[in-house]
Amino acid sequence: MTDLSHRLVEQVVQVQRADGSPLAHTDVDVEQRRHAVAFGCTGFDAPGLPGDPALERLWLDLFDTATLPFYWGRHEPVRGEPRTEELLDLAHWFAERGVRLKGHPLAWHTLAPAWLAPLTTDEVEQALRARIRREVDAFRGLVTTWDAINEVVIMPVFDNEAALEGGGQPPSAITRLCRERGRVATVRLAFDEARAADPTATLLLNDFDMSTAFECLVEAVLEGGVQVDAIGLQSHMHQGWWGEEPTRAVLDRFARYGLPLHMTETTLLSGDLMPPEVDDLNDYQPEVWPSTPEGEARQAEELVRHYTTLMAHPAVEAVTYWGLTDAGAWLGAPAGLVRHDGTPKPAYDALRALVRDEWWHPRRTYRTDATGRLRLRGWRGEYSLRVEEAGGAAAATFVLGDDGVVVRPG
Amino acid sequence: MTDLSHRLVEQVVQVQRADGSPLAHTDVDVEQRRHAVAFGCTGFDAPGLPGDPALERLWLDLFDTATLPFYWGRHEPVRGEPRTEELLDLAHWFAERGVRLKGHPLAWHTLAPAWLAPLTTDEVEQALRARIRREVDAFRGLVTTWDAINEVVIMPVFDNEAALEGGGQPPSAITRLCRERGRVATVRLAFDEARAADPTATLLLNDFDMSTAFECLVEAVLEGGVQVDAIGLQSHMHQGWWGEEPTRAVLDRFARYGLPLHMTETTLLSGDLMPPEVDDLNDYQPEVWPSTPEGEARQAEELVRHYTTLMAHPAVEAVTYWGLTDAGAWLGAPAGLVRHDGTPKPAYDALRALVRDEWWHPRRTYRTDATGRLRLRGWRGEYSLRVEEAGGAAAATFVLGDDGVVVRPG
Repeated sequence: MTDLSHRLVEQVVQVQRADGSPLAHTDVDVEQRRHAVAFGCTGFDAPGLPGDPALERLWLDLFDTATLPFYWGRHEPVRGEPRTEELLDLAHWFAERGVRLKGHPLAWHTLAPAWLAPLTTDEVEQALRARIRREVDAFRGLVTTWDAINEVVIMPVFDNEAALEGGGQPPSAITRLCRERGRVATVRLAFDEARAADPTATLLLNDFDMSTAFECLVEAVLEGGVQVDAIGLQSHMHQGWWGEEPTRAVLDRFARYGLPLHMTETTLLSGDLMPPEVDDLNDYQPEVWPSTPEGEARQAEELVRHYTTLMAHPAVEAVTYWGLTDAGAWLGAPAGLVRHDGTPKPAYDALRALVRDEWWHPRRTYRTDATGRLRLRGWRGEYSLRVEEAGGAAAATFVLGDDGVVVRPG
Repeated sequence: MTDLSHRLVEQVVQVQRADGSPLAHTDVDVEQRRHAVAFGCTGFDAPGLPGDPALERLWLDLFDTATLPFYWGRHEPVRGEPRTEELLDLAHWFAERGVRLKGHPLAWHTLAPAWLAPLTTDEVEQALRARIRREVDAFRGLVTTWDAINEVVIMPVFDNEAALEGGGQPPSAITRLCRERGRVATVRLAFDEARAADPTATLLLNDFDMSTAFECLVEAVLEGGVQVDAIGLQSHMHQGWWGEEPTRAVLDRFARYGLPLHMTETTLLSGDLMPPEVDDLNDYQPEVWPSTPEGEARQAEELVRHYTTLMAHPAVEAVTYWGLTDAGAWLGAPAGLVRHDGTPKPAYDALRALVRDEWWHPRRTYRTDATGRLRLRGWRGEYSLRVEEAGGAAAATFVLGDDGVVVRPG
């Protein structure tokens, strides 16, 4: 039996009237609104999100945290003309629906703008610093979590190795920056600028490399005195589910640094797997890659076991699924929880049954005692409390897990 | 054409009499004695070294630097009874023949003594610190270069992963230390103790992992303020020669840190290669693994091209071949330059032709000018100078490459 007890808390909640007097011997309705753990999804790659009411409902019924796209080359294809307004509209759409926001990524060698390439390394550094500060500043109060920098393990060598093998592009300007300045200096730069623009933001060091290389990088960055708020672990499992033991081993290895773990990019396929010999997932993009009935059954089972494994590990504070639907999925893979036609796959229903049912405190009526208190046991997170009184209903929200919860519905 | 010009130097050598007056218009014999680059080999794993005069001669005719074994478990199988005297004898044998000495390794998770396992982590740390200080102190003045620590990339996770897969041994005590304290703390410990015992020693961070992981570790260690004197790169090429371009790429990647590179463990086989799917080289040990004529031809060609590639890279300051003969070779592989029967393979002759002929300044007579000067162009390294005078010969050694070389034969 999986132990999730660390995700639950039992607490006394003090309910008061607006004047501070206890609301004694009163029925109050309590209902969970959101998990403390972020159950996230990308909030951008599906056409019709927002716009398609059915898709919007599927998204909002399961997820509470959206990852927004800040790929520099797409965000600012023409220098000095960032698409800030467009993205602010999307951010507001989510925020108005109670969805927490995360930005991805502030610094990355891939999808860097073309206009960066001819700049000197000093100019690249200045441009990157300015862009990070600009994005974090513009979204302060909306986006609370950022992938400050992405895939630093390969950052200084990735393109160069491709070039050595006769591959296409010259190294990106960010590759060059990282190669010349070093990984730690590049990480520091990204964290410094993001921190300066929003000292309250949660800043991540995010990578797909689950090997010892990323451990060594984390140690390098921490030795370098960079304050990392969480370690971001990608897990695009296009070549098959990791399995429970290997997943726990990865979590244990990265939990050693005492930092929260965010599973930032989770995918499990509902169709054929990518062959194991493919090294760079980008190299495999078949013309058609259908979702199959057997694949969908497997995806549902693996997703439940995977999320259960993650929830069981105390270090995990966020899990983001990488793409609600197969429409627009990365590499055209059947990685979504919803099919191209908009119907949910078994994995959608299975994950929803976990996150909003099995791991959820449903609406329930409690009666306060003589001192206005009630004892509540539930999943850590945000709750609403509602009282029917003469003169109408009053409501408030509170966080279960905070010390000394006092609620004054109004 | 490979450019080795950075290995050569042209310099004025001032020859003086014992009283400081110039030795003008005199014939002097100049001869190279040793390269600045260390051409090394293990000095321990062949039976008959020392002892077998033919083998001794083969060793000394090619190599100038010996790696001595300080594997803790073998050096101190019974706690408090290190085999210091035995190893001192071997060290003196080499030193008396003008061979430079290197010690390998001071800290490593593999071949740790069995008596370490039951100790607490604090006790393990104290024992490791004391042992490093003891070894470096006992060999001060003899061993000038140390692998301060070996294979830190996998140190905290190697055994644990094996254990997870149901493998045999519990994690070694050094694994435990590294896992609990972190890689950088463990590296710092080893360097601190070795440095304290011999401030003049050249201390290496040595690894077999040529991936980005080791780059990240180097960055972690440098960010942690540990003074690394040289980066040690293993290259046991049991699965095939890396090739020139990949070798250059590895050298370029690790040269970025501005530190000398030591190729600490070089092997090329003269028989069948290990299959590419073998992950841990230790897992493949066939019963017989013969040296073959085709394999020997291939080994000779690859060895020449490999050493030439290394010499061409300005960051390389040492190249150690891992084992002169097939007798006692690691994994039983035909990795030696000499066959089991003691006859040299083509690779031996080919490497000797490079190191002691093509890249060598042979004995030659120069005539000093009116001020006792001669102009010498040669490979950086140690030279001898000999003068026949009335009353007998006088000789001296000097280093070509040092500033303002003044030689007073006596």
